[in-house]
Amino acid sequence: MKTESRLVQWICWLIVITSFFLTGFIIGWFARPTSTDTSHDAGSRRHLREFLDEMRPENIRDHLRKFTRLPHLAGTEQNLKLAEQIKGEWLAYGLDSVEMVPYDVLLSYPNISQPNYISIVDQLGNEGDLVYVNYGRTEDFFQLEREMGINVTGKIVIVRYGNIFRGNKVKNAMLHGASGIIMFSDPADYCAPGVQPYPDGWNLPGGGAQRGNVLNLNGAGDPLTPGYPAKEYTYRYNLEEGVGLPKIPVHPIGYHDAIQLLKNMGGDIPPNNWKGALNVSYRIGPGFTDGFSTQKVRMNIHTNNQVTRIYNVIGRLRGAVEPDRYVILGGHRDAWVFGGIDPVTGAAVVHESVRSAGKLLRKGWRPRRTIVFASWDAEEFGLLGSTEWAEENAKVLQQRAVAYINADSAIEGMYTLRIDCTPSLHTLVYDITKQVSSPEEGEEGLSLYESWHKRDNWTDDRDAPRISKLGSGSDFEAYFIRLGIAAGRARYTKNRKTERYSSYPVYHSVYETFELVERFYDPSFRKLRAVAQVRGGLIFLLADSQLLPLDANQYAGSLTKYAHTIAQLGQKHPDALVKYGVSFDSLFSAVENFTVAARDFHERLNTLDRTDPIQIRMVNDQLMYLERAFVDPLGLPGRPFYRHVIFAPSSHNKYAGESFPGIYDALFDIERTANPKQAWDEVRRQISIAAFTVQAAAMTLTPPA
Amino acid sequence: MKTESRLVQWICWLIVITSFFLTGFIIGWFARPTSTDTSHDAGSRRHLREFLDEMRPENIRDHLRKFTRLPHLAGTEQNLKLAEQIKGEWLAYGLDSVEMVPYDVLLSYPNISQPNYISIVDQLGNEGDLVYVNYGRTEDFFQLEREMGINVTGKIVIVRYGNIFRGNKVKNAMLHGASGIIMFSDPADYCAPGVQPYPDGWNLPGGGAQRGNVLNLNGAGDPLTPGYPAKEYTYRYNLEEGVGLPKIPVHPIGYHDAIQLLKNMGGDIPPNNWKGALNVSYRIGPGFTDGFSTQKVRMNIHTNNQVTRIYNVIGRLRGAVEPDRYVILGGHRDAWVFGGIDPVTGAAVVHESVRSAGKLLRKGWRPRRTIVFASWDAEEFGLLGSTEWAEENAKVLQQRAVAYINADSAIEGMYTLRIDCTPSLHTLVYDITKQVSSPEEGEEGLSLYESWHKRDNWTDDRDAPRISKLGSGSDFEAYFIRLGIAAGRARYTKNRKTERYSSYPVYHSVYETFELVERFYDPSFRKLRAVAQVRGGLIFLLADSQLLPLDANQYAGSLTKYAHTIAQLGQKHPDALVKYGVSFDSLFSAVENFTVAARDFHERLNTLDRTDPIQIRMVNDQLMYLERAFVDPLGLPGRPFYRHVIFAPSSHNKYAGESFPGIYDALFDIERTANPKQAWDEVRRQISIAAFTVQAAAMTLTPPA
Repeated sequence: MKTESRLVQWICWLIVITSFFLTGFIIGWFARPTSTDTSHDAGSRRHLREFLDEMRPENIRDHLRKFTRLPHLAGTEQNLKLAEQIKGEWLAYGLDSVEMVPYDVLLSYPNISQPNYISIVDQLGNEGDLVYVNYGRTEDFFQLEREMGINVTGKIVIVRYGNIFRGNKVKNAMLHGASGIIMFSDPADYCAPGVQPYPDGWNLPGGGAQRGNVLNLNGAGDPLTPGYPAKEYTYRYNLEEGVGLPKIPVHPIGYHDAIQLLKNMGGDIPPNNWKGALNVSYRIGPGFTDGFSTQKVRMNIHTNNQVTRIYNVIGRLRGAVEPDRYVILGGHRDAWVFGGIDPVTGAAVVHESVRSAGKLLRKGWRPRRTIVFASWDAEEFGLLGSTEWAEENAKVLQQRAVAYINADSAIEGMYTLRIDCTPSLHTLVYDITKQVSSPEEGEEGLSLYESWHKRDNWTDDRDAPRISKLGSGSDFEAYFIRLGIAAGRARYTKNRKTERYSSYPVYHSVYETFELVERFYDPSFRKLRAVAQVRGGLIFLLADSQLLPLDANQYAGSLTKYAHTIAQLGQKHPDALVKYGVSFDSLFSAVENFTVAARDFHERLNTLDRTDPIQIRMVNDQLMYLERAFVDPLGLPGRPFYRHVIFAPSSHNKYAGESFPGIYDALFDIERTANPKQAWDEVRRQISIAAFTVQAAAMTLTPPA
Repeated sequence: MKTESRLVQWICWLIVITSFFLTGFIIGWFARPTSTDTSHDAGSRRHLREFLDEMRPENIRDHLRKFTRLPHLAGTEQNLKLAEQIKGEWLAYGLDSVEMVPYDVLLSYPNISQPNYISIVDQLGNEGDLVYVNYGRTEDFFQLEREMGINVTGKIVIVRYGNIFRGNKVKNAMLHGASGIIMFSDPADYCAPGVQPYPDGWNLPGGGAQRGNVLNLNGAGDPLTPGYPAKEYTYRYNLEEGVGLPKIPVHPIGYHDAIQLLKNMGGDIPPNNWKGALNVSYRIGPGFTDGFSTQKVRMNIHTNNQVTRIYNVIGRLRGAVEPDRYVILGGHRDAWVFGGIDPVTGAAVVHESVRSAGKLLRKGWRPRRTIVFASWDAEEFGLLGSTEWAEENAKVLQQRAVAYINADSAIEGMYTLRIDCTPSLHTLVYDITKQVSSPEEGEEGLSLYESWHKRDNWTDDRDAPRISKLGSGSDFEAYFIRLGIAAGRARYTKNRKTERYSSYPVYHSVYETFELVERFYDPSFRKLRAVAQVRGGLIFLLADSQLLPLDANQYAGSLTKYAHTIAQLGQKHPDALVKYGVSFDSLFSAVENFTVAARDFHERLNTLDRTDPIQIRMVNDQLMYLERAFVDPLGLPGRPFYRHVIFAPSSHNKYAGESFPGIYDALFDIERTANPKQAWDEVRRQISIAAFTVQAAAMTLTPPA
């Protein structure tokens, strides 16, 4: 009995001990955290708030003043010094690494001992008659030749600045046989009513000339090393083989000088929409009026092209979880003179983003993905610094880049926000602008989103503020159009409904100073802070959200819209569509497949296991590579570095974005073609390429196996 | 005291219970497997053994017999039926999905009511004189024109089959102005000594003619839809615009017919290496000898080109962990006639791999990554099925494909293993061949690796069996050369030291039957099993290893070798190198950087946290994308779909692989160039591109941030 009871007691104890062990085991088993933190996104939002709040108007003001003290043209010692200063400060703010990346690119400088000028001379020789061609747009040259019957072959054309990229004006002049081109800033386009010229106001003075490159690079970057980075060992084409260089003399002048050339011009008086605001009759020419008809115009241009070293500054903030995923905030540093607006309002904003991120870093925060900050060089000479870096890093970027946010000028007006971005970023843009306060006086309590929506009321039926397509003319080009990286840009802009001048009046002139911004554009620096918060906020959420905040449904919506737009353009020629068997059906069908694939993709995200890191990575890869799927390595006809099938800079205005550019260009002026069969075959071919590309993109969104 | 002692007792018990709880907790904590199974690789090896052992010679024999019963030319009903049969069996074996993927491609068929033939006629008109040009290689035409002084313009050339891809012979004939080309199989190249003609042996009978396409597609796929998949909606070029189509009549004949054409030829007797084994003197011509000199040759060719539907069969075995990573085993199904060797020895091997994988699946196994099995159509017409599928899926494959293993003919001889693959697969090939048994009688106990090493003793100083570069001529082309996916192929081959005939004698003839294989090539079907185990084993380890079994160090070694080879070619022109400033330094420097990056990369793998799924995925992405880094979207000069900068099919023989093909082609025949400055500039440009590409690839191997 005794032994038996002790045995029972022991068994009881054993059971108790075993139970406790098991309880411990089970608790231990389940208490162990799984590797992915599901509460990550809430924490990320808290950090976002800190990151945004840390950005201060007074700091942006200080950065702007600091970076506009001296002229800092690309390739000059001043711009190198500025690069070194930025590098030092970024390191001090706490970035993990900052490097200077040099390239040797073709730049063009005036010859100091032989200044460029235009003269009116009374002799024969290399001189020419002037022809006035309005803005020098494709349609202006068509009107000149087809309606007015004037041929510019061998003539010097004079055109107004504005409306389109100046390089397209030069290209048009060359295409039509002109022997030179003069561009002037007309007060109609560069002076706002009731505003004084600088320094008493922000209008362009009569002596002010707009600088700017006139290359037609079509995304090639350095003209001598298209497709490859301009390193020391890189093969360089001769100047004659270089990409996009003008073959005729080009010169910009102010409106005081323009009057001297225009006032005695002969020929017909043009239609009203060709007339600017100068006190001249804007006669078309060719040449001068009676009494001056022996006078000719001579362009004395001695500009030098030379291969020059430039420097990008590349800073990195290493991601904690996915260091091999890159979110890029890049903007240029080089300026035509001081860069008061362009680009230093942008550079100051990047600087403040770096400072704020550094502050968070010191508190122990680190983003999920790597953030790359870039200070590009030689943007003004054709997006050279950013394009060369994209070329050098193309492979790595194709594999790893999540998004590129551009940081050129942060203001071009005083009225409201302007966003140009890829469709998949629309949702994120609305999200972040709701978390930023309106910078406007009298709008306390309103979000930037609300202010923007109220002010940018282009049409009544919009339920969200308007976002535009990306064109080009700034450093996102190689990332978006060539490499297919989701991209966007944000800036403060004018009231595009009421303010008709091009850009801002003193754009690219010597009057772009710190004082211009401080006295006129943003005295409180709150607009710049708001732009900093938008750009920085986009970067932050792209780098730190567990699921990438990219929206394929928005892309589907945009594709649908673009398909209808381009089909309508084709349907202007109903007979030809029938005769040559052209149909947009395959494109619509592909867009519909894309729409379904996008919807299903986002629905699947709702049931995704957020604790499985590989599951998360897989869907994020699908989102990241969606933009890449629109890239065709064969490029657009004649533009091998414009590879995005959905978006390209317009062939007629680099600043504007064209959707389905291959089809658009094939349809352009098709009623005038000498060989309609061939021209419509090309339309069919381009529709087929567009349909295939959209279909291929849809396939990337379906379940991977 | 009593209370105290009970308290002590309770405390003791509490301690004991707590200890057990804690012990349980700790054991539970650590016993829980982390999300990545670190013992995965050991398990994977066990499954590999099962997978290899499950493959049986008798099954391969059955598959081969089953798939060779009837002729199954691309585009015919028989080949579609075979596709349906394969689809059904793959599904029955257990694949997750199998689909038929159609394309509409340009095929070429003889006209049944108007057979093609060659006649000797005694009249004037469209007929021509014959010129004999040996194998029709570039060097043969050079010798003919430069040394023998014979121009083939307007003549019909007659050349021996063998040594190079027949399409290159046709291209050479066209380039040199010939009006037609006849190709014959010479016994010297298609009969082994002491072997009887089929069916008594495996030699080519005198009436047997080698079929085969003669296109120069350079990777374009369907000639009418270069760059895009040949779907119903796809834009098609006209026949005249089609890529790579021969512009002159082409016809293959056997050696009995060849004697009739050669025996009365006039002209000089050629050097000995132009002479085959027929009882004729192999005179060069042009034309026939005295007494027959009025006779001409007429080619009566009525072949039809027509757009025809073809079908790939695509089977998928979904990966358990990373379904978005694809390992592809693909080979063609279409045959010129029965396909006894080409391709059904390959198709039978794929079939057995699917069956074996299905068996493992049923036991609960599933590979880490997705395996894609492909039965391509219309390979014989220019790699059409595989290229169209690569075009349709290019985006997804660029993002997700780990490797492509090719499964064309599994034997071309009876002697030993032959491997052609990308350098990063070398280590894996050696690994897997050590786990496969030698199929040779009398080599019991030897591994395939040992047998191969012993037999393939080309040079004495090799410490591992020889592996060759990939050329082209089979379906891996689009995957490797255009998309940059690591690729390889394995087959049993002849003794390349002693057997000098081209390919295997009855290649592409009607005598390629099941009996040919069963009676002569592999009566035990053990050689085919060994090839199945190599191909299957490669796929298995690529799909199931936690860390991808790709070796960047091997790539570094190969790049170093290729750089020296190409530099030596350049250094044959020391004066020109100095005069035109050509240096290979940048290339060597890039290769050295690559070597360091590869070494450091693999060293870091030793300290990798194998329990962190994101860390694993990051390094695997670097390995997967390494091959992609060698792809240049701009392509090689004149060959836009050959985009791999390190490897391309030779411009003079599609079957052979050329390393640094851009530089090689720029240097080719450079001593004869009319414009040396321009030619050497192109050499400089190509060196610069190669150096950049290798450098960019090195950058992908460095730590990501």
